[in-house]
Amino acid sequence: MRHILIIGIGAGDPDHLTLQAVKAIARTDVFFILDKNEQRQDLIQLRRQLLADHAAPGHRVVEVPDAERDRSTPAYTEAVDDWRRRRADLVEQLMAEHLGPGQTGAFLVWGDPSLYDSVIAVVEQVHERAGADFDYEVIPGISSISVLAARHRTTLTRVGRPVQITTGRRLAQGFPEGVDDVVVMLDGRAAFTEVDPQDLEIFYGAYLGTPDEILAAGPLAETAERIREVREEARQRKGWIMDSYLLRRNTD
Amino acid sequence: MRHILIIGIGAGDPDHLTLQAVKAIARTDVFFILDKNEQRQDLIQLRRQLLADHAAPGHRVVEVPDAERDRSTPAYTEAVDDWRRRRADLVEQLMAEHLGPGQTGAFLVWGDPSLYDSVIAVVEQVHERAGADFDYEVIPGISSISVLAARHRTTLTRVGRPVQITTGRRLAQGFPEGVDDVVVMLDGRAAFTEVDPQDLEIFYGAYLGTPDEILAAGPLAETAERIREVREEARQRKGWIMDSYLLRRNTD
Repeated sequence: MRHILIIGIGAGDPDHLTLQAVKAIARTDVFFILDKNEQRQDLIQLRRQLLADHAAPGHRVVEVPDAERDRSTPAYTEAVDDWRRRRADLVEQLMAEHLGPGQTGAFLVWGDPSLYDSVIAVVEQVHERAGADFDYEVIPGISSISVLAARHRTTLTRVGRPVQITTGRRLAQGFPEGVDDVVVMLDGRAAFTEVDPQDLEIFYGAYLGTPDEILAAGPLAETAERIREVREEARQRKGWIMDSYLLRRNTD
Repeated sequence: MRHILIIGIGAGDPDHLTLQAVKAIARTDVFFILDKNEQRQDLIQLRRQLLADHAAPGHRVVEVPDAERDRSTPAYTEAVDDWRRRRADLVEQLMAEHLGPGQTGAFLVWGDPSLYDSVIAVVEQVHERAGADFDYEVIPGISSISVLAARHRTTLTRVGRPVQITTGRRLAQGFPEGVDDVVVMLDGRAAFTEVDPQDLEIFYGAYLGTPDEILAAGPLAETAERIREVREEARQRKGWIMDSYLLRRNTD
């Protein structure tokens, strides 16, 4: 039997690793890295450092270009489904070529694998295919939104009230019904500038847990434009951005 | 200047501690434990073990009975607000008595301090009072819902879709609008038996990350009653329960 570990490695601070993740990394024979072909050199460097610090001597790293996702189509879900299928083909092939009997392979996931990440679904697809002879386990990680809340020294939930986690694409269609606290991830368009800022406060964070961390907070009406500018400037300078934010409606 | 650390210690597995939390525990002079006066002996034992493993020699533990919360009133938010004020009084007094200049005190929080926990708000209240001469920092932790998802090897979010985190009390008022994925915490009443189970699937977990862990999943219509029974039996046997679950609507 072969083993696959899906390891949440936290949001960008090497000390976000849990003891469970450290042990999981230490017992891995082969790390599978699906390269996003992007200029996220800091993240690549950080991942190398995690392996240098915690992986066992003799571990192997298999790095291949990730499957390409069609970002031009408006059919978002279908494009992601298609992408996942092609990633599953890739993972199946990598496992066949590089993972021997009894060996353990691992995928490292930024943040926590439970939020807007497809590695679990991809591995599950491979697992369901005929002839798959492996088990797999998920190691939870510190999510970027836990770090967002911690750095702003606030909670995501208020007393007895719900919080919704959603995407920039969804938020641009309107502030969700039935909640006054909304966490937004995957926002490529600065959707916080597109909602009615009345009574809304924003708690914003980018590159959380890293030396480049950016934090900003305040009434949305007064801060949205400044955050949009800071964000755009940072993205230009570094070539990529990873950010999230909490929108909180004042209901007093 | 004195320092306060609010440390997320994960959901129940000692290996959920992050390296950051390990370091924070190691630099703490005084741990403040507000005792819930409940029979959660396993949790008390686990907390003792964490300190034995990671706290510095010579650290002190100050354990006092927590302020009592009025659980009889239907005015839930007001009761919690009142409770927080009295906890702030208690924390202020503890810090005055036990935390010397330049020293570091810590509060340990199960799971992640950002979800349905009041320690941040309580410390912030003390900090805002006149004469408060301390800074404070929050260390994020592995939340029980990250563990829930990991143990079920599923994600909380589906492709491009939102998830809402809410309470049992809220769920009992009806399945939230605008979402098909709902995570429920703080459910003392088994509210999952009170919603229309049509097209809903449940992913349930109790005592997550501990040797007593209970997992159950399946169509809600077929499993709700069994989960309610298992849950009640476990609560009777152990004297307490800590659980959470994901409800997912099949929208195909």
